[in-house]
Amino acid sequence: METIPITGHTGLTCLLGQPVAHSVSPEMHNESFRYHGLDYVYLAFDVAPEQFEAAVDGLITFNARGWNCTMPHKRRMFERVDKLSKEAELIGAVNTVVQENGVLTGFNTDGKGYMTAVTDAGFDIIGKKMTLLGTGGAAASIITQAALDGVPKIDVIARKGNSWNAVEQVIHRVNSRTDCKVCMYELKDEVQMKKSIDESAILINASSVGMSPHEEGCLVPDVSYFHPELIVSDVIYQPRKTRLLQMAESVGCPTFNGMYMLLYQGAYAFELWTGKPMPVELVKNKYFK
Amino acid sequence: METIPITGHTGLTCLLGQPVAHSVSPEMHNESFRYHGLDYVYLAFDVAPEQFEAAVDGLITFNARGWNCTMPHKRRMFERVDKLSKEAELIGAVNTVVQENGVLTGFNTDGKGYMTAVTDAGFDIIGKKMTLLGTGGAAASIITQAALDGVPKIDVIARKGNSWNAVEQVIHRVNSRTDCKVCMYELKDEVQMKKSIDESAILINASSVGMSPHEEGCLVPDVSYFHPELIVSDVIYQPRKTRLLQMAESVGCPTFNGMYMLLYQGAYAFELWTGKPMPVELVKNKYFK
Repeated sequence: METIPITGHTGLTCLLGQPVAHSVSPEMHNESFRYHGLDYVYLAFDVAPEQFEAAVDGLITFNARGWNCTMPHKRRMFERVDKLSKEAELIGAVNTVVQENGVLTGFNTDGKGYMTAVTDAGFDIIGKKMTLLGTGGAAASIITQAALDGVPKIDVIARKGNSWNAVEQVIHRVNSRTDCKVCMYELKDEVQMKKSIDESAILINASSVGMSPHEEGCLVPDVSYFHPELIVSDVIYQPRKTRLLQMAESVGCPTFNGMYMLLYQGAYAFELWTGKPMPVELVKNKYFK
Repeated sequence: METIPITGHTGLTCLLGQPVAHSVSPEMHNESFRYHGLDYVYLAFDVAPEQFEAAVDGLITFNARGWNCTMPHKRRMFERVDKLSKEAELIGAVNTVVQENGVLTGFNTDGKGYMTAVTDAGFDIIGKKMTLLGTGGAAASIITQAALDGVPKIDVIARKGNSWNAVEQVIHRVNSRTDCKVCMYELKDEVQMKKSIDESAILINASSVGMSPHEEGCLVPDVSYFHPELIVSDVIYQPRKTRLLQMAESVGCPTFNGMYMLLYQGAYAFELWTGKPMPVELVKNKYFK
């Protein structure tokens, strides 16, 4: 493929986070800019919490077209932007910013990324019940987008910890402003977990339990919690098959991991910045094998 | 040549100025990064004076390896950096910054760029007298570097205007801290101009007189001011042949324009950031024809 030379006209996009050096986002977006012949580059900047405001001021000064942000900046970006998309407002976190004349609009494409990954894996969960494990940022994004897209019932199961209250607020907003009914249960209530999963078409682990290097972790106690038609998915992609997905496969459940959630959250961001679709098949083949 | 993919590890370098969109510096540096397989990109950021501090704060936040600055920021960059090279301290302006752990060191490679362009054109002016026209930033840089490199006598000829006093201060520092003797004369003293040029091996126009779109301009009244061995040079490269250079060529004087000063100031900056030489022949052939 033809390389576009970087000139004085080349525009900036980037990822802000800490850490970011191993992110696949630069490859994904730069490949897509090249594909469309768009004169942009995408870089990754390792930005500490105390540098957050200077980083955003710098990006406005450099007239960056837009950027992604990841941990630990999604909440502060939500507070910093001038305008919010509907889903970002409900989620209370921003992972994608579009900049125009110094005006920042915040979006959250993580939930859209997950919902598109569901479709990409060949499933249709609209009108069906979901059980979600976890209370972090991924959980908030997925709950919100699933509700907006037409999932009518979501049971959220999690440990009562630091982020329980934050997600409770998200759930309150979702329940009052969408047609979805979201209920929250404690992880220790195993009878409820069994009941929730039994009633669900899809189970999603949106917690970090099972992520490398703690690959032995799994919030579901054993395979007796799965029914044969249950779709079992994970936001984790390191490892590609978490213990949860291995257990589900062992009893014949269809599964998918977090790779394509990552891909599609990027694809939605790319489209917000450029107005053009990311060439997802090309990007899948080069960077998501 | 193999393209280096931009990843999460890719480092930032850039140009700060206004305007910058038509600068050749991004092509020159990105080509050189590719040549050496160095994982950097060079962008151009259009930064207004009121955005100057936010831009520098942003570059530190993004851990940029270094940057160039051009009009109107060279003086403020001189004031902003933590450490100064010898020539930048004398010149009072910075065009190249190296950043390490938030510590900024300022350099000025413009004069070195000119002196190397003299050598590149096949001339040796060390130990010989120079006449320089103009009082701007290019004048200050060339006077200082020529003095540091061993030009023993420089006559500066200029209009008494806004930058006269600024260059007077530079000349005062150069006279007190190098072995060079620099004298300043008013442009209207045509007898002195004739005398200065008669005694000189090289004449350099470091003013913007003759630059596109005012190509008819020339500070030397007529060809009677040239002697046959005089090297006549210009910092201007748009047009490639100013009226000054055309006049000099018409009487057989050797000439060169400002193209390679631009190239070599970049080459010195590149080496400061990367420790590696810019592939100047490659860059000449691709971008300086």
